[in-house]
Amino acid sequence: RYGYFGMDKPEVVKLLLCGVSGCLTDGKIFLSLAGEEMVSVSVRDNVGIAMLQNGDVEVILVMSSGSLLPKALSDKLAQRTGCELRQFVGSNKEEVEKIMKERGLGWKEVAYMGNDEPDVECLNLAGFSAVPKDAPTVALNRAKYVCHSVAGCGAVREFAEHILLLKKEAKS
Amino acid sequence: RYGYFGMDKPEVVKLLLCGVSGCLTDGKIFLSLAGEEMVSVSVRDNVGIAMLQNGDVEVILVMSSGSLLPKALSDKLAQRTGCELRQFVGSNKEEVEKIMKERGLGWKEVAYMGNDEPDVECLNLAGFSAVPKDAPTVALNRAKYVCHSVAGCGAVREFAEHILLLKKEAKS
Amino acid sequence: RYGYFGMDKPEVVKLLLCGVSGCLTDGKIFLSLAGEEMVSVSVRDNVGIAMLQNGDVEVILVMSSGSLLPKALSDKLAQRTGCELRQFVGSNKEEVEKIMKERGLGWKEVAYMGNDEPDVECLNLAGFSAVPKDAPTVALNRAKYVCHSVAGCGAVREFAEHILLLKKEAKS
Amino acid sequence: RYGYFGMDKPEVVKLLLCGVSGCLTDGKIFLSLAGEEMVSVSVRDNVGIAMLQNGDVEVILVMSSGSLLPKALSDKLAQRTGCELRQFVGSNKEEVEKIMKERGLGWKEVAYMGNDEPDVECLNLAGFSAVPKDAPTVALNRAKYVCHSVAGCGAVREFAEHILLLKKEAKS
Repeated sequence: RYGYFGMDKPEVVKLLLCGVSGCLTDGKIFLSLAGEEMVSVSVRDNVGIAMLQNGDVEVILVMSSGSLLPKALSDKLAQRTGCELRQFVGSNKEEVEKIMKERGLGWKEVAYMGNDEPDVECLNLAGFSAVPKDAPTVALNRAKYVCHSVAGCGAVREFAEHILLLKKEAKS
Repeated sequence: RYGYFGMDKPEVVKLLLCGVSGCLTDGKIFLSLAGEEMVSVSVRDNVGIAMLQNGDVEVILVMSSGSLLPKALSDKLAQRTGCELRQFVGSNKEEVEKIMKERGLGWKEVAYMGNDEPDVECLNLAGFSAVPKDAPTVALNRAKYVCHSVAGCGAVREFAEHILLLKKEAKS
Repeated sequence: RYGYFGMDKPEVVKLLLCGVSGCLTDGKIFLSLAGEEMVSVSVRDNVGIAMLQNGDVEVILVMSSGSLLPKALSDKLAQRTGCELRQFVGSNKEEVEKIMKERGLGWKEVAYMGNDEPDVECLNLAGFSAVPKDAPTVALNRAKYVCHSVAGCGAVREFAEHILLLKKEAKS
Repeated sequence: RYGYFGMDKPEVVKLLLCGVSGCLTDGKIFLSLAGEEMVSVSVRDNVGIAMLQNGDVEVILVMSSGSLLPKALSDKLAQRTGCELRQFVGSNKEEVEKIMKERGLGWKEVAYMGNDEPDVECLNLAGFSAVPKDAPTVALNRAKYVCHSVAGCGAVREFAEHILLLKKEAKS
């Protein structure tokens, strides 16, 4: 079950909201005896984000309320990619609508990548939405696009390429 | 060979006992030149544990006697999830029965997730039991449920969802 | 889609240019709270590089302009393997042609291993070229050889063995 | 191509020689900016070694001459498992024959687990020999047993179980 499902054609995606844990990372956290914490990120996904930025799509990294990933690590990931990071306090839907309002955007202009229960509403509402191949079922069933790549290993890059392809098709 | 086998219907699971090494972690330990030790844990499994806690199922992390995982790392994992951690000294069966006695529970109210030889008796006795997909054969053959997910990558979350589904079905 | 495609028979490969991120490494970078960064490398790929060096094929590690891998980590990887490291400033094609000129080599004597968009021209031009199995499509479609191994897990070793096999066949 | 091939029935395996890099570890080394080096080991393989030790089979960890794994990390792995570690200087065959002579053993009493070219002779000579599923072809073709598990993820445990099973069968 890969590919597009009941998707509104996103002629003008202007913003990608991308979950950090389980989308940009593989969802794993390394803990050490000395108290160190580590996550991994794929250079390939960083390239995907840069491709969107070069194609006039803003990318914002988002953390759901109650996320177990340390904020400091998400900050590092945001810094590496030149993205703004938003730590959500309210529901993801409310928070995303705030961001949309700031920018004067509607849901059809928004792409959303998430991987779990708090993302379900946004996966439904966004003009274009995706989950990594290995997302929990609750999110898999709601995404308009299911990546062939797993989280932390190219899923963001894959979604970025699809967004850019659709933008190109919409123009021609 | 996935799914349920000869399972007593666990109408009222009240407690999940979950192995740390090879269930909550992927069973790997990273060792460094400087003497540091690291394990990884999936945010997804942490979410699974929180789902059970919110659904009135207590979760206790357990370490078999002679476990090679440093106690200090298990403590960190327990702290992250808000679970009690028990380091077993006697056999897993004896130790689990102590915990059950403390809480006035019978085996039918207990769910057990393990992955190796010391877990076999409890996998047999617990009303509901599971192993990650990549567990050694000795444990695979005794679990009532074999996860589709591997250890450290969602197996605990998967088992948590099944426990909650069964609780819901039992009520209706 | 594995194996050779429209390849000029590389009778005399004298130089392998091998990407660091996504060829020698798996493309992942680990980031820690304390600011530490880590990459992994497979001993098996190190052995593959040594096999080429012993077979009179020079190996140079290359980083595309704008690479997100810290130069200091690439230096460590180069040191481990006894390879020169080149951090490209211009396009990969220009930079490779500089290296070829220094050594008096033509494209037919050059093997190239890359994994992404900046590598496409060189994958086309080199007498022998390869990508790891898990490279993005843009590079997969241009390589003369697609490895059965993924990046950071033996792809360099696999390519090294093929280069040496072809050298042997060319001699006999 | 899994299972036994042209094997002498090893009635009395008394010694297992097991490669560190690519057998007990997955062959990866993590390198950090600060100069730290890390390897991972599976608790499951540690349990496999303990099973052999409890079954009167001595286990010695071996490093081929020129191994790229830091000796200090191999020492840590040996310490964890209570095994002696031998860093080979001569060919693996010579070094193993020294060990056999010290103990008064013949090749039929020796089990050998390796994963690459320097192991080929010993894989041929040992009464019982194995490689992890993901070993390079040169070693895969010489092992009497090819594990279903990959290196660093249970291959040593799997081989240990087979050795113990054969010992049991030989007795009955």
